[in-house]
Amino acid sequence: MIHTIEWKDSGVVMLDQRLLPRQEVYRTYSRYQEVAEAIRTMVIRGAPAIGVAAAMGIALGVKNSPVDSIEDLDAAFAIICDTLAGTRPTAVNLFWAIERMKSVYARTREKGVDAIRQALITESLAMHRQDIESNMEMGRLGQELIPANARILTHCNAGALATAGYGTALGVIRAAVNAGKQVQVFADETRPFLQGSRLTAWELNKDGIPVTIITDNMAGHFMKKGEIDCVIVGADRIAANGDVANKIGTYSVAVLAKENRIPFWVAAPVSTIDPKIPDGSFIKIEERDPDEVRKIQGIPITQDEAVVENPAFDVTPHRYVSAIITDRGIARPPFTESIRALLL
Amino acid sequence: MIHTIEWKDSGVVMLDQRLLPRQEVYRTYSRYQEVAEAIRTMVIRGAPAIGVAAAMGIALGVKNSPVDSIEDLDAAFAIICDTLAGTRPTAVNLFWAIERMKSVYARTREKGVDAIRQALITESLAMHRQDIESNMEMGRLGQELIPANARILTHCNAGALATAGYGTALGVIRAAVNAGKQVQVFADETRPFLQGSRLTAWELNKDGIPVTIITDNMAGHFMKKGEIDCVIVGADRIAANGDVANKIGTYSVAVLAKENRIPFWVAAPVSTIDPKIPDGSFIKIEERDPDEVRKIQGIPITQDEAVVENPAFDVTPHRYVSAIITDRGIARPPFTESIRALLL
Repeated sequence: MIHTIEWKDSGVVMLDQRLLPRQEVYRTYSRYQEVAEAIRTMVIRGAPAIGVAAAMGIALGVKNSPVDSIEDLDAAFAIICDTLAGTRPTAVNLFWAIERMKSVYARTREKGVDAIRQALITESLAMHRQDIESNMEMGRLGQELIPANARILTHCNAGALATAGYGTALGVIRAAVNAGKQVQVFADETRPFLQGSRLTAWELNKDGIPVTIITDNMAGHFMKKGEIDCVIVGADRIAANGDVANKIGTYSVAVLAKENRIPFWVAAPVSTIDPKIPDGSFIKIEERDPDEVRKIQGIPITQDEAVVENPAFDVTPHRYVSAIITDRGIARPPFTESIRALLL
Repeated sequence: MIHTIEWKDSGVVMLDQRLLPRQEVYRTYSRYQEVAEAIRTMVIRGAPAIGVAAAMGIALGVKNSPVDSIEDLDAAFAIICDTLAGTRPTAVNLFWAIERMKSVYARTREKGVDAIRQALITESLAMHRQDIESNMEMGRLGQELIPANARILTHCNAGALATAGYGTALGVIRAAVNAGKQVQVFADETRPFLQGSRLTAWELNKDGIPVTIITDNMAGHFMKKGEIDCVIVGADRIAANGDVANKIGTYSVAVLAKENRIPFWVAAPVSTIDPKIPDGSFIKIEERDPDEVRKIQGIPITQDEAVVENPAFDVTPHRYVSAIITDRGIARPPFTESIRALLL
């Protein structure tokens, strides 16, 4: 069992994903601002995990807020929520989690400050538990798609480390293994942050699931050689028409899969669907620190003044997506209809 | 002027490309075995540069061979040629250069040991000079394809550092700049060896040509956003039908270019064409040390025991190639005919 994030009396405890796989360090954050900073600096990452972290950060901030009156708590709560909302722009689960905490706050407000504090903690714990349950359900539904002997390519990390536990894309793979299927995973290393070579390989190794790391630019080569049977990735935001924002490079993998007639599946809870946006052009793509490209694990690989770009996500148009595996069922093209049906 | 490789009285001098762009170190090799090792360990790389290095390595080995009789030199020459031929399997220029040295040896043999020694040195210097001339000619012909305002994607390094000087793909870009065109280059970083972020960015910076480094998995994203007008890459071996072996990831770039209706050009001298092989399936793909993927600049990024793959090249089928720019003209589809015409 991987403890990506936990609520403890001392604070919110996270496995520091920046140090994996070489070091396994757990950090305890006792202030909500530290939780926000941990999200921003990618101590924790992955859309569902970010959602849970934001919820726990809000619960922590309200718990520790030194106010007595409901009016003062209203003001403090707004600041706490804004701070967590300002951490990362692309994953919709962050905003979904904050909205859910705001609803609980509104529903509990008349009961007073202490009741709010308790209700927000309870809600964040429920979101943690429900995220794992939703992963398990996605796994149960999604593993039906996996062939009995499957060589599966994945990009980035959509595993236990990207969620409260178990994983979305890797949850489907785990469920396939548990169903007795023979699985071989190819993990794109996923520059610049190396979520594939550092995180996906680490957590699959822990579970004894065979995994081979390749650099991002090798995926097409192995597809063309016939060594990949299917692709499964996670998502950070899914538009109403099925366009998928996910880690930079996902679009390239999807195009290569289509060109090689390999199914391309996305696994994500319905909380990742943003029905308010009609298509992917409305998704804000986070631009991150150029030094993530200029350096690898702190080691400079370019000239100091090198000009770089560092978009953290891209959008895969729905025409490249074979199916979207959610915790409420599998959506297939045409996605506008199938996604709407899932959300009813 | 970049001095990738030079012949000096003290030996063969190479710019150590493993240390760029952070250090500019020149190494002098006085034994042919050292030249072979420099090719194997990628002190020097790039198909045309490897060809010149092999020729100079042979000239060096014969120059220093402590034999007096022609029969002893025959035996020594065979060992020297075999050593250099065993360094890297994919780039055909290596074998082309060795064959050329063998021809000179055969033609000069009756004149005796000293005449052979001199002839081989002269030949390797001629190959160095002719490589630069061929790059200039490719540039002159190829730059006609470049739009007046061009955002050009390139992969790996097909520049002065991959040749005796000037470059193949980057030679075309240099010629376009010299013709007064506005050029913005996007350089794929090109994991695992980072030829793009380390070498291409370094040499374009030296020439004042604007270059932006992106990770390999970003290329598709920028193509889809309409920010790339054309792609130009080098080649390590071109089959008779136009299939192109080049640095791993080239195939993916070509598929993404086709999907986004962006022209994909290959620049290579005719010495990179291997008319003996009908298609790319006959090209041996070098597998390199897994530690190139497990580490970056010597720093481990994965678990020590991580399973990785490390093919150094891939094959781009000719149907993705818009044109092949050579020093004898530009070949266009159907390539079987146009390549044959170039070689007449």
